[in-house]
Amino acid sequence: MARLEFWYEFASTYSYPAAMRIEGLAKNASVEVVWRPFLLGPIFKSQGWTTSPFNLYPAKGAYMWRDMERICAGLELPFKRPNSFPQNGLLAARLAVYGLSKGWGAAFSKAVFRSEFGNGYSIDDANLLARLVAQSGGDAEDALRGAVTDANKSALSEATRIAAERGIFGSPSFLTESGELFWGNDRLEQALSWA
Amino acid sequence: MARLEFWYEFASTYSYPAAMRIEGLAKNASVEVVWRPFLLGPIFKSQGWTTSPFNLYPAKGAYMWRDMERICAGLELPFKRPNSFPQNGLLAARLAVYGLSKGWGAAFSKAVFRSEFGNGYSIDDANLLARLVAQSGGDAEDALRGAVTDANKSALSEATRIAAERGIFGSPSFLTESGELFWGNDRLEQALSWA
Repeated sequence: MARLEFWYEFASTYSYPAAMRIEGLAKNASVEVVWRPFLLGPIFKSQGWTTSPFNLYPAKGAYMWRDMERICAGLELPFKRPNSFPQNGLLAARLAVYGLSKGWGAAFSKAVFRSEFGNGYSIDDANLLARLVAQSGGDAEDALRGAVTDANKSALSEATRIAAERGIFGSPSFLTESGELFWGNDRLEQALSWA
Repeated sequence: MARLEFWYEFASTYSYPAAMRIEGLAKNASVEVVWRPFLLGPIFKSQGWTTSPFNLYPAKGAYMWRDMERICAGLELPFKRPNSFPQNGLLAARLAVYGLSKGWGAAFSKAVFRSEFGNGYSIDDANLLARLVAQSGGDAEDALRGAVTDANKSALSEATRIAAERGIFGSPSFLTESGELFWGNDRLEQALSWA
């Protein structure tokens, strides 16, 4: 079965609908999804950005929030703009990396996005994340320990390094086995048909 | 009949497939297209950019050129990357504004995009533009005079001011009569269904 890598950063708005759509669409296309959490912060920093381009460029930001409303309404996904943006998704990403090695990482990743952009919650809250781990079938205590081991932290750093090396500059990004890169929720279908 | 404004800058790569696709898709959707050339340069400048973000951010640029190849291949549109990017589209935009008042502006706009990204030609060349005016049913001598009158130059500046006022920050952009903004060639279908 063909595989498609789904690269995502938890602070990214458009990664929310992508995360909610990818499994159903991939199943129909007979493509296996490989969930690849990474951090956009270091990549943005290397471009000279200290925050999200949606904050740096207000017209782009205003458009994005309206666009998210429309997209979520169209998909019948709950949407609530969080009070702060972008959020710190470091612990969530470490938990996702750990969870993917334990089998609950995809469910957890969707739960994080739903909490953040469906409910407007703060995803840097360890108590919330512990609850989401448990809801996703993981052991919350074990996960909070496993997420911050040197090995797990390195795995996330390494994923971020690989993302940059592959030419990834935004989230969501989709990478086919042949190295074709697609950027953006609205390119998911095209990425699957290339995969 | 519903109307959809198509805002475009001639230096913009993704505006090429949008310009080639919009009339057929709009006809099927029973939507009237209003062609609105404008200049992105002043809008980019107000964001602190001195050139295209595709040049400022190399990973984004590399992605865009590969993406353009794929998109044009998928649409069976010729594609040739011009030697220089972004090109100076000022005279072309002034001619388009003038041509739209004379009835040949849409055909001319498509011809400019095809020359620039289908053939890789330099669109700041007045001789080339004169030929494209003539091919589009205009009078080239009259057009080159009409494009640079104060009234016509002001009309383009005014369009650029209105674009910024409407929240437009990139090209192609589509604006419905109710004020819904869509950005990007891949949003054309969605914009038409909102129109």
